[in-house]
Amino acid sequence: MSLYKQYTEKMRKIADVHYSMAVLGWDREIYLPKKGAKLRTQQVATLAGIAHEMATAADLGELLEKLSADDTLDEWQKCNVAKTLKSYKRQQLYTKEFVIENSNAVSAAYEAWMQARKNNDFSLYEPALSRLVALKRQECEFLGYEDHPYDALLDQYEPDAKTADLNVLFADVRRQLVDYVKQIGEKENVKDGWMFEHFDKDKQWQFGLDMLAQMGYDFDGGRQDISAHPFTTSFGAEDVRVTTRIDENNFSEMFWSCIHEGGHALYEQGLKVENYGLPTGEAISMGIHESQSRLWENNVGRSLPYWKANYAALQEMFPENLKDVSVVDFYKSMNKVKNSLIRTNADELTYHFHISVRFEIEKALIEGKIEVKDLPEIWNKRYKEYLDIDVPSDAQGVLQDIHWSHGSFGYFPTYSLGSFYAAQFYMQAKKDIDGLEQEIEKGNMMPLLDWLRENVHQYGKLYSAEDLCKKITGEPLKFQYFMDYAKEKYNFIYDL
Amino acid sequence: MSLYKQYTEKMRKIADVHYSMAVLGWDREIYLPKKGAKLRTQQVATLAGIAHEMATAADLGELLEKLSADDTLDEWQKCNVAKTLKSYKRQQLYTKEFVIENSNAVSAAYEAWMQARKNNDFSLYEPALSRLVALKRQECEFLGYEDHPYDALLDQYEPDAKTADLNVLFADVRRQLVDYVKQIGEKENVKDGWMFEHFDKDKQWQFGLDMLAQMGYDFDGGRQDISAHPFTTSFGAEDVRVTTRIDENNFSEMFWSCIHEGGHALYEQGLKVENYGLPTGEAISMGIHESQSRLWENNVGRSLPYWKANYAALQEMFPENLKDVSVVDFYKSMNKVKNSLIRTNADELTYHFHISVRFEIEKALIEGKIEVKDLPEIWNKRYKEYLDIDVPSDAQGVLQDIHWSHGSFGYFPTYSLGSFYAAQFYMQAKKDIDGLEQEIEKGNMMPLLDWLRENVHQYGKLYSAEDLCKKITGEPLKFQYFMDYAKEKYNFIYDL
Repeated sequence: MSLYKQYTEKMRKIADVHYSMAVLGWDREIYLPKKGAKLRTQQVATLAGIAHEMATAADLGELLEKLSADDTLDEWQKCNVAKTLKSYKRQQLYTKEFVIENSNAVSAAYEAWMQARKNNDFSLYEPALSRLVALKRQECEFLGYEDHPYDALLDQYEPDAKTADLNVLFADVRRQLVDYVKQIGEKENVKDGWMFEHFDKDKQWQFGLDMLAQMGYDFDGGRQDISAHPFTTSFGAEDVRVTTRIDENNFSEMFWSCIHEGGHALYEQGLKVENYGLPTGEAISMGIHESQSRLWENNVGRSLPYWKANYAALQEMFPENLKDVSVVDFYKSMNKVKNSLIRTNADELTYHFHISVRFEIEKALIEGKIEVKDLPEIWNKRYKEYLDIDVPSDAQGVLQDIHWSHGSFGYFPTYSLGSFYAAQFYMQAKKDIDGLEQEIEKGNMMPLLDWLRENVHQYGKLYSAEDLCKKITGEPLKFQYFMDYAKEKYNFIYDL
Repeated sequence: MSLYKQYTEKMRKIADVHYSMAVLGWDREIYLPKKGAKLRTQQVATLAGIAHEMATAADLGELLEKLSADDTLDEWQKCNVAKTLKSYKRQQLYTKEFVIENSNAVSAAYEAWMQARKNNDFSLYEPALSRLVALKRQECEFLGYEDHPYDALLDQYEPDAKTADLNVLFADVRRQLVDYVKQIGEKENVKDGWMFEHFDKDKQWQFGLDMLAQMGYDFDGGRQDISAHPFTTSFGAEDVRVTTRIDENNFSEMFWSCIHEGGHALYEQGLKVENYGLPTGEAISMGIHESQSRLWENNVGRSLPYWKANYAALQEMFPENLKDVSVVDFYKSMNKVKNSLIRTNADELTYHFHISVRFEIEKALIEGKIEVKDLPEIWNKRYKEYLDIDVPSDAQGVLQDIHWSHGSFGYFPTYSLGSFYAAQFYMQAKKDIDGLEQEIEKGNMMPLLDWLRENVHQYGKLYSAEDLCKKITGEPLKFQYFMDYAKEKYNFIYDL
C-alpha cells in the first residue's frame, strides 16, 4: 500500500471514531433517558481517548514526515498532509499532565458556572474560572505565537487569524456600527407583536421542514429533530443532522434555528465524501462555518425577496396571526433592531457589540491586563458603553454564556467573522449570479446553493479562510461589505 | 492498581466501545437517513475492529492467566475471570484468515439471501449458503467439542448446552405437542376477527407505553421508538431501549412486540450496573434472555388475569372495535392456535414445530448428513409432517429467516429453550409468590418483577443456565412444565 494510502486509511479510522462520538453526542442531546447520562459520558470519554491515541501515534507521525517530503503528491494531497502534520505537532505540545489538569479544570468550571448562574453569584465561578484562565495563559506559551499570545488560541478555531486583524475589525465595528445603531434608535421602532402570538407547534415544525427543503437541505442525507439547544452535527457528509426548538409563543425561535442550522448543514453536506476524514473533507474554520449559517439566516432569511417567496405560505398556515400583516411589515419585524442584554437573542447589528465586549475581555485576560474578579464590573461598563444598557444581574450579564466554562477562549470572534464573511460572499454571489434575488423571490434557492457548493463547500480546508475570501471576492475580509449591506437594508426599514 | 482492578478497567473500556456500537446500531434501525448507511457500516466496522483488538490483546490474556490463579478473589470475581478467559481463549482459536473469509462469506450470503427471497429462487442462495456451511463445519473443528460438532456452535448462544439434551427436548416436543395440537385442530377455532379491524396508531402507541410502564419498565433508564423490526438494545443497564411497530389493521403486532421486548429490557435493566462490562453484568445466554421475554409475553400477556386487569382500559380506548367482545373471548382470541407457514407469526404452541424443523436441519448440515441443495425439499417435507401444511413457495418456506445468512447456526433452539424455561420459572413463581395471579389481575406486576430481579436478573452470568434453573426450581430444564402449562390453558380455551 502506498504511504499516502496508508495515511488516508489511518485518518478514515480516526474519523470513524470521531463521528461515532458525534452519534453518541447527538443522541445525548435528543433522546437520552435521564439515567443514561453517566454511562454515556464514560463511553464518549473512552472513544475520545481511543481517537486521541490514534491521532498521536508515533507511526502516524513518521508517515506524515515522510509524506511531507513527497513531491509527487497533488495539491489536495499536500494540503491534507500539511494540515494533518500541523495538528499532529500541536498535539505533541500538550503534556499528559496538562491535558488531565485542563480536563479537571473544565469540569470544575462548568459545574461552578452552572451554580453561579443559577444563584446569580459570580463569586461562585471566580476561582474555577481563574484556574482555567491561568491554564489558557500557559497553553498560549507552549503552543507559541509570533505576535500576540491570544493568536495561539484563535488559531484553534480560526486557523491563521491574527489578533491584530481582529483589533482593526472590531475598531470598525465600534466606530461605524455604534453610530449607525444610535441613528436607528432615534427612529420609531418597527412593530412585531404578531411574532409572539400563539403559533401551533406542528405547523411550525412543518414550515421549518419546508424551508429546509427549499434551501436544498438533503433529507436523504440528514434529518431534523428537536433539542433544547439547536445544533448541527455531522457523521460524514452523507449524514448531517440538524435540530431545532419550537416556542409556541415566539415564531422566530424555530425559524431562525432552522435556517441557521440549515446553513451549517449545507456546508457539511457539500464537503466531498471522498475526502472523509481528511482536512479537505472538513470545514475551513469556525468563522467560515458561521459564514454559511449567517448567509442563509441574515442575507437570505431576513431579506425581502425571501419573504416575498414564502410569506403567502406562512400566512396560509397561520391566518389568524398574520392575515392583516403585510409582507413588508412582516419583513421589517423580522429585522427589528434593539439593544438587548443577551447575545443569543440579539439582532444582526447589535450582535457584534456583544462579541466586541467578549473579544476585548478575552484578550485582556490572556494578556494578564485584567483578572477574573474584575469581569462583572468591566462587562457591565462595556454594555453601557456599546449598547447603552444597564445589566441588572450577572446571570443576565457576564454569566450568560457557556463558552468560557468549557475553556473556549478565542471562539467568540468567529461569530462576528461569520457575519462579515457572509456579507462579503453574498455581495459577490449577487455579482456572479444573474438575477439571484429574483430567483430567491420565486423560491428558487438553487443558484445560490450551487454557487456556495462551487465556491466554498467543495474545498474543505484546501484554502485558508483568507485565501478563500481572496479567491472568491478578490479581496481579504473587509468590514465595509457588512456595513454596506446593513445600511442598504436598514435605511429602508428605518427610513433613514 | 490491583490486577483485578486493571482487568475491570480494561473490560469497562471494551464495553464502552461495544455499547457505542449499539448506539450506532440503534440509530441505524430507527433514524438513519438513506444515504447514511454506507458510512455507518464503516464506522461500526471500525469500532468492531477496535473492540476486537482490545479483547484479544496479549496483556489482557496475561492478566487473565494471573488472575485465574488468584485464590483471594470472591465468587463473583472468579466467575468474571473464568468467563472472560473462556471467551478470550476462544477468540485465539480464530485465525485472521478465517475471520476475513467468514466475514466475506456472510456478506455474500446475506446479499444472496435477499435476492433469493425477493425472487423466490433458492438456487440464488445455495452457493453462498454452502460456502457458509463449509466454514461453520471448519469452525466446529477448530473450536472443538466433546460429543457433537453442533455443540461448538450452540455454545456461542447457549453456553454449555448440548445437542444430546436438545435431541431429548425436541423429541418430547414432537411426541407430546404434535398430538395435542392435532386435538386442538379438531375443535372449532376461536374467533379473532376484531383483532384485524382498524386500531388508531396513536392510541396503540399509548396503550403499549402504558403496558410497558405497568410491567415496571423504567422509562428513566430507557425509551421506546418505532422500527421495522422490533428489538431491544442495551447501552448499559441504565439505558436499555426497546422498539415496536404498529399495524393499524392488526392490534396484536404492536402488543406482542411491546410486551416481548419489554421482557428482554427488564432483564437488561435488572443487571447490576456495577458489573458493567463484566460477565456478571451480562445476560446468561440467549435462551435465558428469551425466557424473560416469553414469560412476559406468554405466561403473563396471554393470560386471563392479565386481561382482566387491562381489558377495560383497552375497550375504553377502542370502544368501536371491542365493546361487544367479552374479556374471555378477547383472551381466547389472543391465544388462537393455528398451523401456519411463518415462524414469526406462529402461536406459542406450533412455534416449536418451526424451531424443531430448523434444529434438525442445522444439525444434519453440520454433521454433513445433508447438503444445502436439499434444504427446500427437506423443509417442505417436515412442514407437512409437523404442521400438516403445504409450503407454497421457498420465499415463504426455507428462505423466510435471516439467521443462516448471518452465519447464525445454533441460534434457533434458544427460542424454544426460552419458552420452556419461562414455563418452568413461572410455575415456580406461582409457588413462591402468594396470590401472584390475583396481583396480576389487579394490574400489579411488581411481585413478579421483584421475583425475577431477585432470582434471575441480578446474577448476570454468575450461574450457568442449567445451574440457575436448578437453583430456582430445584430441577434441570424439563419440557413437562411447558406441556403442563399449555394443557391447563388450552384445555380451557378449546374445551378439551
